[in-house]
Formats: sequence, C-alpha cells, structure tokens
Amino acid sequence: MARRYGQLKTVALDEPDNELARASSRITSHRLGVLFIIILALASLTAIQVNHSTSGSEIFFGGSESLAGGRLSEDIKICVSNIPPAAHPPAPINPWASLTIHEMVEIQTWLLSPPANLNLTRGDIARPSDNSIYMIQSYYPSKADVLKYFSSLDPHDVPARFARVTIHHGAAMEPVIRDYLVGPLPVTPTTRMRALTEIYHTETLPYNARGYDALDWNELLGGLPNDTLVAGGTGPFSFDGSFRRFWLNWQRDTPGFWLHPLNLWQYVDVSGTDPSKWDQLKIVYNHQVFDTAESFMDAFRNGTLKRGVPPVTKKEEDLSWSTRERIGALRDLDNLPGPRSVSFAGLRYRVDHDLQYVSWMGWGLYLGFDRDMGLNLWDIRFRDERIIYELKPQEALAQYTGNDPYKSSTALLDSYFGMGQSVRDLLPGYDCPDEATYLPATTFSATGMMARKRAICIFEQDSGRPISRHLGFERSEFGAVKGYQLVIRSIATVGNFINLSLVFEYIFHVDGTIEVRVSASGYLLSGFWDDEQGAYGSKIWNTTLGSLHDHVINFKVDLDVGGTSNSLLKTTLSQEVANQPWFGDDWGEEVIQQRITREYIDNEDEALLKFPTNFQGGYTIVNTNETNKWGIPRGYAIHPGYSPVYNTVVGSKRLLKNANWARYNLAVSRRKDTEPSSSSMWNFNLPGAPPVDFHKFFDGENLTQEDLVTWINVGMHHLPASEDVPNTRTNTAASSFFLTPFNYFNYDVSIESANAILLQPPTTPGDPFSYTDYGVRPAHCIPQPPAAFEYYPEKEYDLDGKLAPPSTVEEMRKASELYLRLKFEP
Amino acid sequence: MARRYGQLKTVALDEPDNELARASSRITSHRLGVLFIIILALASLTAIQVNHSTSGSEIFFGGSESLAGGRLSEDIKICVSNIPPAAHPPAPINPWASLTIHEMVEIQTWLLSPPANLNLTRGDIARPSDNSIYMIQSYYPSKADVLKYFSSLDPHDVPARFARVTIHHGAAMEPVIRDYLVGPLPVTPTTRMRALTEIYHTETLPYNARGYDALDWNELLGGLPNDTLVAGGTGPFSFDGSFRRFWLNWQRDTPGFWLHPLNLWQYVDVSGTDPSKWDQLKIVYNHQVFDTAESFMDAFRNGTLKRGVPPVTKKEEDLSWSTRERIGALRDLDNLPGPRSVSFAGLRYRVDHDLQYVSWMGWGLYLGFDRDMGLNLWDIRFRDERIIYELKPQEALAQYTGNDPYKSSTALLDSYFGMGQSVRDLLPGYDCPDEATYLPATTFSATGMMARKRAICIFEQDSGRPISRHLGFERSEFGAVKGYQLVIRSIATVGNFINLSLVFEYIFHVDGTIEVRVSASGYLLSGFWDDEQGAYGSKIWNTTLGSLHDHVINFKVDLDVGGTSNSLLKTTLSQEVANQPWFGDDWGEEVIQQRITREYIDNEDEALLKFPTNFQGGYTIVNTNETNKWGIPRGYAIHPGYSPVYNTVVGSKRLLKNANWARYNLAVSRRKDTEPSSSSMWNFNLPGAPPVDFHKFFDGENLTQEDLVTWINVGMHHLPASEDVPNTRTNTAASSFFLTPFNYFNYDVSIESANAILLQPPTTPGDPFSYTDYGVRPAHCIPQPPAAFEYYPEKEYDLDGKLAPPSTVEEMRKASELYLRLKFEP
Repeated sequence: MARRYGQLKTVALDEPDNELARASSRITSHRLGVLFIIILALASLTAIQVNHSTSGSEIFFGGSESLAGGRLSEDIKICVSNIPPAAHPPAPINPWASLTIHEMVEIQTWLLSPPANLNLTRGDIARPSDNSIYMIQSYYPSKADVLKYFSSLDPHDVPARFARVTIHHGAAMEPVIRDYLVGPLPVTPTTRMRALTEIYHTETLPYNARGYDALDWNELLGGLPNDTLVAGGTGPFSFDGSFRRFWLNWQRDTPGFWLHPLNLWQYVDVSGTDPSKWDQLKIVYNHQVFDTAESFMDAFRNGTLKRGVPPVTKKEEDLSWSTRERIGALRDLDNLPGPRSVSFAGLRYRVDHDLQYVSWMGWGLYLGFDRDMGLNLWDIRFRDERIIYELKPQEALAQYTGNDPYKSSTALLDSYFGMGQSVRDLLPGYDCPDEATYLPATTFSATGMMARKRAICIFEQDSGRPISRHLGFERSEFGAVKGYQLVIRSIATVGNFINLSLVFEYIFHVDGTIEVRVSASGYLLSGFWDDEQGAYGSKIWNTTLGSLHDHVINFKVDLDVGGTSNSLLKTTLSQEVANQPWFGDDWGEEVIQQRITREYIDNEDEALLKFPTNFQGGYTIVNTNETNKWGIPRGYAIHPGYSPVYNTVVGSKRLLKNANWARYNLAVSRRKDTEPSSSSMWNFNLPGAPPVDFHKFFDGENLTQEDLVTWINVGMHHLPASEDVPNTRTNTAASSFFLTPFNYFNYDVSIESANAILLQPPTTPGDPFSYTDYGVRPAHCIPQPPAAFEYYPEKEYDLDGKLAPPSTVEEMRKASELYLRLKFEP
Repeated sequence: MARRYGQLKTVALDEPDNELARASSRITSHRLGVLFIIILALASLTAIQVNHSTSGSEIFFGGSESLAGGRLSEDIKICVSNIPPAAHPPAPINPWASLTIHEMVEIQTWLLSPPANLNLTRGDIARPSDNSIYMIQSYYPSKADVLKYFSSLDPHDVPARFARVTIHHGAAMEPVIRDYLVGPLPVTPTTRMRALTEIYHTETLPYNARGYDALDWNELLGGLPNDTLVAGGTGPFSFDGSFRRFWLNWQRDTPGFWLHPLNLWQYVDVSGTDPSKWDQLKIVYNHQVFDTAESFMDAFRNGTLKRGVPPVTKKEEDLSWSTRERIGALRDLDNLPGPRSVSFAGLRYRVDHDLQYVSWMGWGLYLGFDRDMGLNLWDIRFRDERIIYELKPQEALAQYTGNDPYKSSTALLDSYFGMGQSVRDLLPGYDCPDEATYLPATTFSATGMMARKRAICIFEQDSGRPISRHLGFERSEFGAVKGYQLVIRSIATVGNFINLSLVFEYIFHVDGTIEVRVSASGYLLSGFWDDEQGAYGSKIWNTTLGSLHDHVINFKVDLDVGGTSNSLLKTTLSQEVANQPWFGDDWGEEVIQQRITREYIDNEDEALLKFPTNFQGGYTIVNTNETNKWGIPRGYAIHPGYSPVYNTVVGSKRLLKNANWARYNLAVSRRKDTEPSSSSMWNFNLPGAPPVDFHKFFDGENLTQEDLVTWINVGMHHLPASEDVPNTRTNTAASSFFLTPFNYFNYDVSIESANAILLQPPTTPGDPFSYTDYGVRPAHCIPQPPAAFEYYPEKEYDLDGKLAPPSTVEEMRKASELYLRLKFEP
C-alpha cells in the first residue's frame, strides 16, 4: 500500500495491493503445478513477450518510442520460475535416506508380531514398567559398502538398509535399554534383529538412563491448584545408572517463562520402574534447604523462613518484556521491506527432492536427517572428487554454573532430547530467504511420527564480496570473481532445559571451501537474581539472572583427501634467529623472523588437539601419496572461524567422561564403523559410565595414511547481558570452522567462475577499461511474486502411520518443549 | 540472450537482448537526472500503472481475467528508483571532510608564495635535493571542539579547518622532513603555518626516512637492455634515519610478475640527497654474495658461479597462470548470473553525498578519507546516542620471512605508501552489489591529485539469517527478526612490495553491533623456490615460493559509552570448586563449575592486552556512572571475530619499536589529541627511532572514567598454498572484530524491527498459525534495470588543480604500484 512507502511517495509508483497479492500468491502456490505446465506449453509455442503500453497517466515502457529525448525502452519479460532444476545424483539411491513412515510402521508391526516375542506395549500408552519401542531410525550403512556401490553402481552392490531400534525393556526382571539393528529392509522373511552393541563401550544401557517421555513425568506430578506456575527439570538424571533424579525449577507461567524463575527448587527421585517408590528428596527456597515438604511448610508458618525478594506480579508490571512482541519507535524507513535476493535468471542449484541430493557449482552431496542431531551431509564431492564422506553434528553440550541447585547441576547433551526431533518448519522469508528451496524430514518418537515440510532450506546467496579480486595494469591482472555461496540450513529449537534455536548451516564456496557455522538464538535458561549471583552471570531483569554457560558442539568430519588414505599434518609457526652472509653492519648479522615446522602426528594419542596460541599454525588432513602439481601432499585445512572454543570446565562430575570431545578444539582418530559417533543419546545420563567414551577412540593407533575422522568443535562461552532479552542474537552467538583446500589443487579453482569480470587497461588514455564478463550479466526481468507467508503445524502420524488429528497448541508445545514447561491439570 | 539460459529454456520467458539493454542502461544512467524529474512529474499527477495485456503468444498479467481456473492477476508496477533518499546529518558540516582540490591548490599557492619563504620546487619536478611539498591532507579538529559544536550547533562553534602539510626540505643544510599545520582554512590573512610536532615522539623526521616517489628511483636506475625483467624494492629503508638502503628483487616481466621471481637481488644505497653518491653495495644470486658487479660477472664468466634452476621461459610454458584469466570447464549453470539483491521498495539507507553522511535503521555516521589509511568513520550514533567518536584504521603491517635477502628484510607499514592513496574505483556489481551507492574520494600526492568516483560503496544486505528467532507456543514467543546489515566498504590495492587488495568493511547490525572486517585478495609477494625454502613457505609453481608472512592491521576505536568518561572492564572465566548445602551423596558435596571474575584495569601499563586462552573472558568499555535499568554499567564489548591474531615475531630489528601495537590483540589508552594515531607514515623507515612510539602512550595514566581509546588488531598468519594462485581468496584471508552492546541497553533493541514476524499458535487444531508482519511484506514490482558495467580511469589533476590529460596505462600502473614494477627505458 502506498502509505507504507510514504516517504518515497514522490518517486514511488505505488505498490500492489497487498491483500490482493497475498491472495493471488496463495492461489499461485496451490496451483503451481497446473500453472507451470501451462507456462511450459506457452513457452514452447513461442517466446513470451509482455508489452507494456501506456496512455494518459500510464508510462510507456515498450516499443521504441522516445521520451524526453532519451530512449527509455525495454522488452521486459517474466523471470523463469524459481523451482530448482533437476539434479543428477551419482547413484539412483540415497544410502542415508531417513526411514519413511511406511517403513517405520512396518518395522513396528514386525516387532510387535508374536514371533518377535518382545512383549511390547505401544509407546503411546506404555508405562515405565512396560516394554516399549522408544526410537526407530535409519542406521547408516558401512562406508566400505557405500564406496563399493558408488564405485560399481551395480544394483547388486546397493547397501542393505537397516534400522536402529531402541526398546525400553521396563518389564524385564532387570529393566534395561537395548538398541537393536533391524534389517535388511524392507521387512521380508530374511529380516533379522540383533543387539547393536559394537558401537558402545559399556555392556548395558541402564534403565535409569532411559529416554525422556511424558508418561514418566505424569506419573510423578499430579496437579497444581492453579496455572500460575510451571516447572522444568534439569540433568543429567544419573551418574552411572544407579539412580534417576533431577531438580525441578519453578517458574512463573507467562510467555517467555524461561526468564521468570522463582527462588524455589525441588529434588525428586524417579529411580526404577515403580512410581509408588518415587519421592521428593529436598526443597530449596532462597538458599535454604528442607528435607521434606513439612519442614518447609513449618518454616513458612512459623516465620523462620528467610523470604527472598518477591518478583513483581503481573498486576504490578507488564510481563510482555519476555515475549517477542515488537516494541519501541519505528526506525527510519523500517516500514519498508529490506533488500531481497532474487535469482532473476533462475536458480543455479539443483535439487533431487526425493533423494535429497543437491548440487551447485561443481559441488554435489546427499542429505540425511536423524532424530539425534538432525541434518547431516554425505558424499560431498567437488569437481568430481569426493572430499568429505560424512559431515555430521555429533552432540551439543550446554554446561551451566550457579549457586542454585539447578544451575550448578545442569550439563546437557542435546542428542538425548533429540536435536533432529526438535526441528520444526522454517519460517520462509525470515529463517531463509524468500526464494529458498525446502526439504522435508520425518522422525519417530515413542508416541508417534512427525513429518515436517520445511525442515531444511537450501539457497544460493551473493556474499556481496568478491572471493578474489585484484587491480593491476598489465594484461589480465585486473578483475574479480563474485563470492556466491550455497547455504544448506536447518534450525532445531532445542526444547529441553535450555530453550534455544540452534541454526546449523553449511556454506559452500566456489573455491572448494566449506564453512560450518552454528548460531544460536532463543531464550536463556535463567536463574533467580540476588546479590550473591554476580560470579555466575548478569542481572537481566529485576529478579532474573542471565546465567553463564558454555556451549560446545561437536562435528564429525570424515575428510577423504584424494581417497581414504590420509595423514594428519601439524604446522607450527614460531620464531627463529637467522644469520645470512649478505647481512651487513647496517642491520646487523642476524635477523629474527618466522619459521614453519611441519610434523605428521602419527599416533591417535597425540591427536587430541587445541589450536596453538595466537593461531600460530594449524592442522591439515593430507594425502602423502597424492601430491599436487608442485609435489606437495594434497590437503584440506581445518581453518578456525568464529569463536573457536572448547569447554571451560574440566573434571566436573556431571560431564566426567561422557563428553571428553569438548575438552579440545579438535581431535583426529582412525575411522571405524564401530565408532560412528563421538556421543550417543545415552551419554547424557551416564557421565560416569558413558556408552560412548570418546577417549577410548584414542588408543594408540597409527594415523599415517589411514582413513581418518576429524572431530571438530564449535562453541561459545555465553556470558549473558541485558541484550539477551528477549532472545539471544545470532550475530555474536555464532561459531564456525572452515574446511578449505590447502595445496589440494594446483591453483585457486574459483578462477573457473564465469560470474567474474576481467578488465584490460585502455590503450587510448582516458578511454574506459575494456572487459569481458564471460557473457554473464545481471538478468533483467519481472521476478516471480514472493509467496504469501503461511505457517502450518507439522503433520503428526500415530504409531499406525495414520494421520493423527491436528494437535492442539498444548500438544504441540509439549512435543516441542519436551515437557520443559510442566503444567498440571488436576 | 536466450542461449545463455539454454537449460532452462522450457520455462524461460526469454531474456532481453543484452546489447540493447546495455545501450539503454547507459543512456539511462547518462540521463538519469532528466528522467528522474519526468518520473517525478508523472508520479505527482497520478499513480502510475502498467497494465500488461496479452493476446496470441502473450500472457495476461493485468486485470482480473482468469487463467486455467486460477486467478493469475497482478497489478505490477515499476519499483522506485534506487537512489538513496536524502539524509539528515546532525550538523550541516562534516568536520572530517577531505580537502577539496580547490583547497589543496589554494594551500599550495599560499605555500609557494614569496612571503612563505620556503624555497619550494614543484613536486612534479623536484629532485631529492630540492624543497618540495610531499603531502597535503585534512588535519582533523580536536574532539573537544567537535563535541562543543555538535552540542551547540552554533555556527560560531564550527571547528576551524586545518591541513597537515609535509615538506621535504631537501635543500636545507641538514636535509629534513617537516610536518606543518596550516590553517584556519580557507586561506585568509589569518591563516598561519606551524610545525606539527606534538603528535611525534622524536624531535625531527630524518630525510632518509622521507616519502616515496618516482624521481628518487629514476635517479638511481638508468635503463636496461630489454623489457624482460622488472624489479621491486623492499623496506624499511632505514633503521634510524642514518642511511637509506634497500634490496632490489628481480622478476620476470610478465603479467602477475609478483609470482615470477628470479634468484637475483641487489642491495643499493640511496642515502642523502646527492644521487652521484648512490651506489650498489651487494649482489646476491642463488645464495652467493658479490660485493661488486665485476666480481659477479667474473664468476659468471669463469664458471665459478653456482647456477640455480633456470625458470622456464615463455616459449617453454604458457605464463598466463599468473593472470586472472578464466580457465577450466564451465561449472554447471555458471552461464547464468547468480542471485542479486534488490531493494524492491527502495533503498532504506540515506546518504548525504556532499557531507558524506550515512544513516540507516537508527545508525548515523560521517565518513572521512585520508591518504594514509583511506576510509574512516566518525561520530557514529545509534538510536540518538553517540557510540563511537572515531573508528579509523591506523596502520597495516606485513612482515615476511625467508632465506633470501628480500624476504628476510621486509617488514612493511602501509601508511607510508598510502593506503588511501592506493584506493581505486570499486568494480560495480563485483566489488559491491549492483544496487550499491558510491561515494568519491580525492587525495594529494607530490605530483598531482587524484579524484575517484567510487572510492567507497554503501549498501544494505540481507544476511539471509534472522538476527533473532524463536519457536514457542505461548503467546508471542514464536517469531523472527530479519538480519539486515548495512555495509560500508572501500578497497585499497596496496601497490607497494606486496600487491594486495585489502577490503575494509564496516558492517552495521540492527541490534547496535558493528563488525569491522578486513579481507585480502591479490598477488602474493613470492620468493624463488628451492629445496632450502620449506621452512619459509610453500612451493606454488616450478620456481616460485609462496612466502609465509604476517599481516596485522590496527584500528583506533574511540568508543564513548554514555559519554566520554569510560572504564575498562576485564572479565575472566575460570573454574572453581563449590560446595553447597543441598548437594548429597549421589553427586558428592562439591561441584566443579565456571565462575566470572570482573576487574577494572585502571592503569594504562596494564592495558596492553591479549585475548585470554580459549577466549575465556574478554574486554568491555563501560561507563560506571551510567547503568542500565538493572544497575549494570552500560558497556560495549570487543568481541573477537575471524582470525583474532597478533604478530608472531617479537624483537625483529626491522620492527623494533615502530609497530609495537602489533604485539597485542588490543590495547586501551587515554584519549589525547596529541596521540591521534598508533602509527605514522614515517614509522616505516624508522623502526629504531619511530616518530610515533606506541608504547609511549602507555605511561601509567589512570583509566578510570576517562576518555579512552581502544586500539584493536585484525590479522592473519598467511602461510600460502597453491590456492593463493593467481590471487589470495577473501573467504579465509579474513579477520574481524565486533563491537557489540553489552548491558548497554535494557534489552535487545533489534526487537524494534518491523522487518519481523510474530506468530501465534492456532486456536483450532490444524489451522495455520496466525501472525503479524507489522505491515512489512516483500514488495513486488519491476526492478530498475541493472546499470551496464563500465569502468573509467580515475581523474587526475595537476598541481595547479587543472584536469590533467588522461594517463597512459603506464602512468596509471606507476601511480598504482608505486614503482614496485620498475621498468627501465634507455
């Protein structure tokens, strides 16, 4: 509407009616298929021309009439559709494809069938003392099998498809969790099930470390007199599986409740499978400890209870400061939409929607998606060479501190809660640019399955900065290559005890570089502010403490540099004193200067690594048997990006041995199918006896020309400030690393780009520079109208694979927050 | 042309003829003024509508007719012009404006006039033994004067305008350099000249440290038998001014010659003002040292000369590998232009072209530009508060290493060569997005003045990532704010001994954060490869070594947090063992956790700082007398970005005392008008007796609630690889820091943005989420056609201010490369 662009009114040519545009866009999107075919048909008949004619108040843009002496003429056409063109995956399958709903139902049916003899109760009604299926997801095939198939492409070599199934054996004499491998899939008479143990360092998975579900908690907590309070839990629940206990943190029930802590905590014991034995162990209010509710109430009644500052009430103060509602004066020109990226000539990346394969500018890769950590990338090739076999987030740690029971005991590992399960649809135009392409993802939970339409977005963006450029005056020295990037992104809103949106993104550059970046937004897990809290955070509201915490997120990067035989090169930059015969009296006989030391780290025990002080040196995965044209081993360097940190705290009992990867910037070990991940969803509750003990990967094996995995961390020491309210900002809450060719090629291959310019100085003084743009110029056409914004809840399926009735907002909230916000109905 | 979009032909609606578009765009740009007025007139009469009608092969886009059952209708209009709207600077002047050509001529005339009695020779004909003007540029007014004026806006308070003038007193008995202050300007009878000494720590500026110019070198080097070779020099030229000597590095004369070193160096003495006394001191060829040309030639003739590997000749191998010519196969879809950012609803930043004032989303700032370091930013305000008084690059260091005379003796400080003087026009569409706005800059050199039209670019960009977002299911928890940024950029191609494009950019965020980022591209300064070179770099061609070097670039950041009285807060994150009464047997009585230590650094001597190991803590400039709503001193944090490094080498004689700022990540000192910069253009040649001795700023003064300056470094340890050929890449050759509000506000002010969405969960299950977009939706209109690319040489003016005849390419090259490529004519 014209009013919105008021200050530009004098030149504005009026905006389309937005309601109309929205309506028409919605129709467009619904009928896209039909329209696409019609346009196709018309286009094949003849080039489509839109001629704009004008009379009276209209301005003439077509033909060749002249206006004010200047020729303002254009034959302007409609831009091509922004549907990505079809991709050409290297194989007709995606070996890392998630299980379909059909497959998950089929597996359940098979498991529930009498021959399986598992005595299973359906997950949606199971109690802790029942046997039930907690999780089903794709189990990725062995690397050898995949490489064999990709090399032969023989249908006989297609890797068999398996599922990992977790069963809570609550009805067993000695209740236990077991992971199983089920396959081959689809289910046939040859399908078998066996215990999946080779990936764990412990014999059993204790039942007290079991998965998180609603029923568990509902058993514990009955009802509350009103809806003014909500509680959230802490973790880990156990040290070694001998108990299951947690602190409940009480908060005011208001939007953004994470920022409204009270001064009250309860310690509860939910060990074992018999809810009648569960109990409250302690109450802490305002630094005072009570063993029972009675002693707490006695103190309350007899006046010995030391009262804390009461938080202001809703009546006293508007609590909307903890919501995301816009406040404050409108900034100058913020009534206008900002710039928007448009691929006027059509999208340049290709997507195979079914296989979840993406290609762009020489890059090609498959996508996977799992419950534990969400989006992952496979078989990443660039210019016809495999560079990375697997690029997958492993685990996300958040360790808190404080002088209250909650903060001093919270050390979260998010794969337990399911980073992938926490992914919800992206917000088109906000989480990703308008013209992004979206891919779906489906996950299984004990109570049903969830299908997301927009779990992942893919888009090309102009970094706005040339990737290389130079000014020179000899032939072909002067020019620039545009810095385009392909971004693949997914956002998980981890609804556990923190409540954070983690933006995972993989940014591909035209030179062969990948930046892996995680940024965070969302609500802080806050504490109750009093004057003793200064050492643990910052006051961010009257009675709210923004608590200090560390985030560390581990990635598995299985680089294959010129094949799977690789070595780990450590480069160190230091200082030397050098003498040279050509030095003289003027400057002295010596010079102090830098020097490079290169060494191969040949033993896993030496490969738990930190970046050197002042980043004087670094680490490169190289292939000593494959050299570039100049005789140097080809390599990919791990180049630190934003906030290259590791965990501050070492030796905390709550992370004693279950997250040792977080002690380093990176680590390199031999790749093994039995060491698929640096963590497991069971590690969270077993810091004293972790099923995956990362340090056990480092057992003295040789690293010379072996298949190596690099485990790389991103992270952040998050000392909150008032600017974390209402939500943390992704610009400074960001961490990244680059994987970048280092003597991998013979030269910078981004020079291949035709989205580039090369200038030659004029031969006649004063003339413009001549140039070539390789025939690639900005396209000028009428872009597709941006789709109207819409956001639907995810589709839920029951355990039978039937579309479940749409969730109420309460159900959606619970599924998202994993019962962080415990509300109680009588 | 349709062919370029061949693979999308089926849906492509044809592209406009590019030749035609180029021609018409050129006309458009030439006649923009006229057209603008006409459009204005038409627009004021009535809203302009373009109706698209169709028949036969044409498709219908206007009216309300239905097509295939769907209503495909739009009233699509022409987007508003992409000329930035007018700005509203806080004052009608820019106190940091560069001198105009008129002013520079006027000052020269005044200096050359007999009453000045300076016995000056014009710079374009001066010899080393003459007195001549080397430099004239604006000298920035005192902060107190500016603040007084900005506070009163009384025309009587307008700060007086001064120029800094450098005169080479070559004709003096004791030749010397002197800097003078000339003003007030414009020249009137009250204008005076005085020695500018208060900003230097030394009494005099020795003549052997004087500025770089062509005449100097031409005196030394006569001619060469052919044009197959070029030479470049090294630096510093002196230690303390007692001599002026440098090594000449011989290279093959071919495009990208920086990558074609030979194995030959000469050491020459150009001390004093009498060229007849200048001499060659040494020749080094292939690690052999000769004192004279005769002894070298003798060894050559009698066969005792140890020959090195001869580089292949042009006949043997194509040498275009060192050019920027596109090579290799075209990548898939790279025949299409990539996505382009368009402000469909008009630009949202304002620019005052004359005052060089820019505003955007609550930000406002003035630009300055000087010869020494180029673009600088002043009086940066955000939401009506001054946050930074001055943000200015100070110096750029490049220190090399090697086992040849050249590399082991090169430690460059670029302000000597003139980072600002090295700025040339940006490449529209390549160095900055198509719709960027450009600002000009003019600099003075001894031989003339240069006016650039596109020295600086300004543009808004969508980072493509929300600055904050969250998923929640209570009222107003779910939403996102778009991550728009304003970028102000300038690129200097430092044509000294390195030949690098340094991209300086300032990125403003809607939350009050600024990222200061420098990235590098361009040619390496290479060495001659032989097997003894491994400790100093990597082989990047048959006979070429990519030499290891460090870049460190220092910025002055004069933060004013809630006024000029500020303090330096150091925060440290460490580990503690805590006991709490509520811990029990299960987890033990102790916990190991993080804690925060805050201390104010109150003495300059303690304020030479490095980031802590693992970034466990950091530094904030705070105002202890100004607290936010929660009682915390308001502050701005220095948040490290990419590659937060300092110089590796300490104690090198070539950087003994002239770049001590490079030893740290940052430093904080009291702000003084007498300490305007951490360096000076004279520092380069005076490492032993630097005119600006940075460590002298740190003389024990108190830092508590004083006006503070933070000196912050970005940098890179550049260990080259084959991928640095032909040019280094800006993605990994990047370093940055953030200045970010830290308890400065009461909450995150980016929540004010209306380019945001707020969702509410559906009340009826299965319904879409309702939302508000605050009335800001993507605009849909026909964008302005991108301007055709064109690139003209900069305009040169002679010392009289007259437009000089256009330069030949040779002259442009010389001016750009500062005679790095010395070619010799007989």
